[in-house]
Amino acid sequence: MTQSTPITVPRGLKNVIVTDTAIGDVRGEEGFYHYRQYDATELARTARFEDVWHLMIYGELPDAAASERFARRIGELRVLDGTTVDLLRSVVTPDVEPLAALRVALATAGITERPLFDLPEADRIHAALRYAAIAPTVIAAAHRLARGLDVVDADPAAGHAADYLRMATGNTTDDAVSALQTYLVTTIDHGFNASTFAGRVVASSGSDMTSSILGALGAFLGPLHGGAPGRALAALEEIGDPSNTRDWVRGKVAGGEVIMGFGHAVYRTHDPRAELLKEVVTTRYDSPLVRQAAAVEAEIETAINEFKPGRRLYANVEFYAGVLMSEVGLPPEMFTPTFGVARIVGWTANILEQAAERKIIRPVARYVGPEPSRTASSRTTADA
Amino acid sequence: MTQSTPITVPRGLKNVIVTDTAIGDVRGEEGFYHYRQYDATELARTARFEDVWHLMIYGELPDAAASERFARRIGELRVLDGTTVDLLRSVVTPDVEPLAALRVALATAGITERPLFDLPEADRIHAALRYAAIAPTVIAAAHRLARGLDVVDADPAAGHAADYLRMATGNTTDDAVSALQTYLVTTIDHGFNASTFAGRVVASSGSDMTSSILGALGAFLGPLHGGAPGRALAALEEIGDPSNTRDWVRGKVAGGEVIMGFGHAVYRTHDPRAELLKEVVTTRYDSPLVRQAAAVEAEIETAINEFKPGRRLYANVEFYAGVLMSEVGLPPEMFTPTFGVARIVGWTANILEQAAERKIIRPVARYVGPEPSRTASSRTTADA
Repeated sequence: MTQSTPITVPRGLKNVIVTDTAIGDVRGEEGFYHYRQYDATELARTARFEDVWHLMIYGELPDAAASERFARRIGELRVLDGTTVDLLRSVVTPDVEPLAALRVALATAGITERPLFDLPEADRIHAALRYAAIAPTVIAAAHRLARGLDVVDADPAAGHAADYLRMATGNTTDDAVSALQTYLVTTIDHGFNASTFAGRVVASSGSDMTSSILGALGAFLGPLHGGAPGRALAALEEIGDPSNTRDWVRGKVAGGEVIMGFGHAVYRTHDPRAELLKEVVTTRYDSPLVRQAAAVEAEIETAINEFKPGRRLYANVEFYAGVLMSEVGLPPEMFTPTFGVARIVGWTANILEQAAERKIIRPVARYVGPEPSRTASSRTTADA
Repeated sequence: MTQSTPITVPRGLKNVIVTDTAIGDVRGEEGFYHYRQYDATELARTARFEDVWHLMIYGELPDAAASERFARRIGELRVLDGTTVDLLRSVVTPDVEPLAALRVALATAGITERPLFDLPEADRIHAALRYAAIAPTVIAAAHRLARGLDVVDADPAAGHAADYLRMATGNTTDDAVSALQTYLVTTIDHGFNASTFAGRVVASSGSDMTSSILGALGAFLGPLHGGAPGRALAALEEIGDPSNTRDWVRGKVAGGEVIMGFGHAVYRTHDPRAELLKEVVTTRYDSPLVRQAAAVEAEIETAINEFKPGRRLYANVEFYAGVLMSEVGLPPEMFTPTFGVARIVGWTANILEQAAERKIIRPVARYVGPEPSRTASSRTTADA
């Protein structure tokens, strides 16, 4: 191997192409994103979560028989073994976040997981399904244990979205399950995000599925990751009484302040996820929260037209995701973990794709510290 | 944020500069590497492990008083709490690798660890020291539990290298401690390796120290990571009786086959780590293993001169690392975990440096799958 000249690129590898993918993409200018060859929001309107999961992993939507088989397989994998439940009981205290408990459960469940490169494809896929399937059960269990409640068992015959909602909140209404399922499908993947990249970096060394998911989950926990819907309702909370909405929004917009839940780095137009989730909540829920959310959005549009004519500021996915999750009964501390229930599926699809490349991702660093001293006793090539 | 043209670079980000670092560098053409401004092999000859650890984290070698304080602090952090010991007892079965047990212990110890960006510097450093300090204790405990033995407690008054060797093997001889300490110091860091990069990717989102270490450890477990000294003695085992050495080597070299433990991707000359470790084992141990290792190396040189004149093939760090670890009493399955005991210090120094940048590492992927279809019911910007 020869040593070539180091290549300078923008900081943070911004816009640097690190890999090819057939899993999906985001077209920011068009307000469009897709999973494989399907419009992601169209899938979210119509498909069940497990079918889209099948699409992400196998590259195609299942037929009716395959759909049943796959949902049953996921249902069985969703059930925690007694050892994991005991472990959660022993480590989850009131100050433990559900995703930190998931980290422990994944490390334990994968304690004998073998490197991806050593496994036949069927075993790699099984690992991908297994660890993603336990996420809702672990998250719901940790959420309950942290509040002094005992664990609710998974029901292998239920749908993934329905079972998660029941375990986490007790809510079993069809409307809520359907709304949550739409949210979960919209959130499985979204182009090449930072947690997906972290998972692929770990997988690129040939490491095991558990380690690769832990890498993705680790990046997901960072404040710069973005898409943390726990902050989505901050604006609504700050406004308080709806009668304050107009003045609050005008103050923020006139002062050029950031409003949580509005604006997105990639979409130059409406975020298609926000559009869809807004439609879901406004058609299903006629609640003070939904009316207030719509009022804030309308006031922002009015204020932007007055103070920053020509500019646009759209609600992003976090805003209506927060409204939706509130309506189905999830508390704010469960917003990001619920996002994780869906996104872990996207991570595993990306990890499988990366592992198939068998090429390590290994850039270089530029040393900028003081020039090192070489002492007299150091060996040099002259000694060789 | 505008969307710029994607930048094409070599696959695997080879030679792409991802960050600046003041932690160290490798000069492959010179057979030289350094930690901060110090020759790393010179430190390995003379400094104790904790002092180099201090250098990596704080940027300077400690004076005598600071050295004592720091070693005492590490010693105290090395002791496992009862909860972690109980956890290891419950999860470690004979088929569990020590580094998989470390993954569980780190996830559990860090279950309430807060994001790096939310912590003052002293707390970030404390987390770095805490998780690196438990590595030898967890690894030795897991190694013993997997063989049906009970855990040996850490001794906070002992040196880090000495305490690890005692817990893992029972060996407390000065020569062995000194040899192992030299190995551990040579192995703390080595330029910008793949596991270090994975840890920095996770840290770049502002995630917590535990998650960042888990990212690094995950990549470290991959077969493509390299530097797995468990394979180092494979050639010696394959040769079997020393009288076979000449024929075995000539067969391999004439056939152009790879010989494990020889050759390195970066060093164009002797690997300075291999040179130092060879010196350590040949001056301290007059054993059949050391004589056999030296014989293999000499035979390779002779055979290369005959079959590939003008070429060179040098022993790499794995070869003499394996010999050294064998001589101090570590079995082959503990070679890579022992490497991890040292390298976790390098990871934490890199994670701290990355977190201080507060800039996410987030490249892009190029979509190469089928063109997605946009259905009639999809929203378009015309709806906005």
